[in-house]
Amino acid sequence: MKGGRFSFQLLKEGEGGRLGRITTPHGSFPTPAFMPVGSQGSVKALAPTDLQEVGTEILLCNAYHLYLRPGTEIVRKVGGLHRFMGWEGPILTDSGGFQIVSMSALQKVEPEGVQFRSHLDGSLHCITPEKAVQIQEELGADIMMTLDDCPPYPASSDEAKAAVALTTQWAKRSQEAKRGDGQALFGIVQGGGYPELRRQSTHELMEIGFDGYAIGGLSLGEEKEVTFEIAQTVTALLPTDSPRYLMGMGTPADILAAVRIGVDLFDCVLPTRCARTGLLFTSSGTLNIKHARYSSDSAPPDPDCGCYTCSNFSRAYLRHLFLARELLAYRLNAMHNLFYYHSLMRDIHQALSEGTMGQFIRECVSQREGKGENSEKKEVR
Amino acid sequence: MKGGRFSFQLLKEGEGGRLGRITTPHGSFPTPAFMPVGSQGSVKALAPTDLQEVGTEILLCNAYHLYLRPGTEIVRKVGGLHRFMGWEGPILTDSGGFQIVSMSALQKVEPEGVQFRSHLDGSLHCITPEKAVQIQEELGADIMMTLDDCPPYPASSDEAKAAVALTTQWAKRSQEAKRGDGQALFGIVQGGGYPELRRQSTHELMEIGFDGYAIGGLSLGEEKEVTFEIAQTVTALLPTDSPRYLMGMGTPADILAAVRIGVDLFDCVLPTRCARTGLLFTSSGTLNIKHARYSSDSAPPDPDCGCYTCSNFSRAYLRHLFLARELLAYRLNAMHNLFYYHSLMRDIHQALSEGTMGQFIRECVSQREGKGENSEKKEVR
Repeated sequence: MKGGRFSFQLLKEGEGGRLGRITTPHGSFPTPAFMPVGSQGSVKALAPTDLQEVGTEILLCNAYHLYLRPGTEIVRKVGGLHRFMGWEGPILTDSGGFQIVSMSALQKVEPEGVQFRSHLDGSLHCITPEKAVQIQEELGADIMMTLDDCPPYPASSDEAKAAVALTTQWAKRSQEAKRGDGQALFGIVQGGGYPELRRQSTHELMEIGFDGYAIGGLSLGEEKEVTFEIAQTVTALLPTDSPRYLMGMGTPADILAAVRIGVDLFDCVLPTRCARTGLLFTSSGTLNIKHARYSSDSAPPDPDCGCYTCSNFSRAYLRHLFLARELLAYRLNAMHNLFYYHSLMRDIHQALSEGTMGQFIRECVSQREGKGENSEKKEVR
Repeated sequence: MKGGRFSFQLLKEGEGGRLGRITTPHGSFPTPAFMPVGSQGSVKALAPTDLQEVGTEILLCNAYHLYLRPGTEIVRKVGGLHRFMGWEGPILTDSGGFQIVSMSALQKVEPEGVQFRSHLDGSLHCITPEKAVQIQEELGADIMMTLDDCPPYPASSDEAKAAVALTTQWAKRSQEAKRGDGQALFGIVQGGGYPELRRQSTHELMEIGFDGYAIGGLSLGEEKEVTFEIAQTVTALLPTDSPRYLMGMGTPADILAAVRIGVDLFDCVLPTRCARTGLLFTSSGTLNIKHARYSSDSAPPDPDCGCYTCSNFSRAYLRHLFLARELLAYRLNAMHNLFYYHSLMRDIHQALSEGTMGQFIRECVSQREGKGENSEKKEVR
């Protein structure tokens, strides 16, 4: 235990966003923070040493995936998730509410919990709020999420209202369930694209009281304007002394915008998923390594980048690896993309510390517009 | 350039084998040595830092693969193969003789060279002995191989005889072709399963004179007794002051047997290919990580092993990664298997140095027979 009990320290708050620090039983880290996604207990193509090298300070894993395979009992037997995957830093686990809706078949939401069939073998399961906490306790997560009812987008106002009511009930039961010493629990705000329902959900969760608050049910296909309007509605109400986590976001531009409205935590598959399709993030926009123009290009993906990939390999080599389907391609691309994301977060910390976020955001935008092969908008949705 | 011109130093020779040292423009290394295979300019799933970590001192790459993709011209433009793949140590390139026969369609062997269609896109190519040297010169190999005529197994005595004649002609032309300063050239002995033809091929190549001699056309499906009879026939004739390379071999047991008859260099896809099928080499035999018996086994693959994988991960985690098809599985398995091979080579160096090879081989055999989940014979063919 490098850290201690869970705590959040707000170091600075201003128009540009919030600078803070989260402490967990497995160490502390500055916020705003980006969490790479290791759904099945592995950030795709990367080992723990790679994550350390690119600057990862907290990981997200999925209770849904790990509960189904290898099974919570196995992870517990081997000494918990940190030991299992060889990662000694903080881990946040998602409860599975979102995955059950998006990945499994035949899910049925009832007041007691949610019934669903495994996407792996069709087996029938029932997860209650108490069970979700128990699974995350057995995994040994530093930060666990309550089970929420996350309807698909778009939801009608009646659907969204019912989801808020059930999410609040479940949040209460989650908070009352036994959990491990030092494990933090975050509530998840629902309410679809309806500001009034979002306000209600936020107030009801604050009434119960959590170590942190997540904004769920966004990034499901809605317009970006809706995303940020809803996120801002929620962050404006949340207590300043608790961390706010915008689930499933996003592109570098999304993160910059969300930091400005007071978000502290992010997770997204984008950097690792793009790595596997040959799309690299650079200071001047995204670069599609498959393009023929890079076939004999001896420059690194981003000449301004200090990651392992850019320090050692050319665009020509990375293109060759990708076209030849060499496994190394996915790792080198993922290392670069995560290094890019974590560097962005470090730059954000500095800008927040110096009170220069506005200027920093303008510089980021003009760099991308001025030099990029393709703007982020065009290639990354 | 860390090394200098190519040279081979025989340090000790005895009943157990030969202890030596090869020097190349990119550094020197002790022999017997095992070369991991990086056909397309990447040892599957591993970065250069991983290779350093597991103890690799020389790599094999395939001129055939690199000539077809990305193309020799691109590798040359980017600064040669070492720079291209970020590997600063010695590289041996195979000429393509074997790959043309085993991988390409419609190959046609003529006195001038060999015509074939690419296995990638069906395009027509002709490789002559001179062209094979030129390709390997452009790649910047430390050790290049002559183009040989390697008929499939089994070959009739007439076929084998013709292959020896052509291989000798081509070897002569290869030796006369211009090549880079400091680049070594090895001849390849052919002659199928016919000891008399093997003797003839060996004598003819020695007459021409090469920096080293390879034994080709083995490990093609023949009985192991034939392999070692032929290899011994050849090594008994070869000059003691040149390195001998047994192409495409083999299992740990094969390597031990071949070292005893005086072989200095090995290459094989086995450790990296087995890694991708979940088969791990250990001091007590092979271990199939997919087995249900390892589902909650918190021990590392080999408790006696000091590799990155065994120092950080359990059988349970490696089994989970493999079944979940996580890319990390292939890397961790490959690191373990190559570490095992390179450790075996270091143990062989020590046994040769101390004159205890006989005892060392007996210990290896009894360890495998006494403890293994499965004997190597049963699982690895």
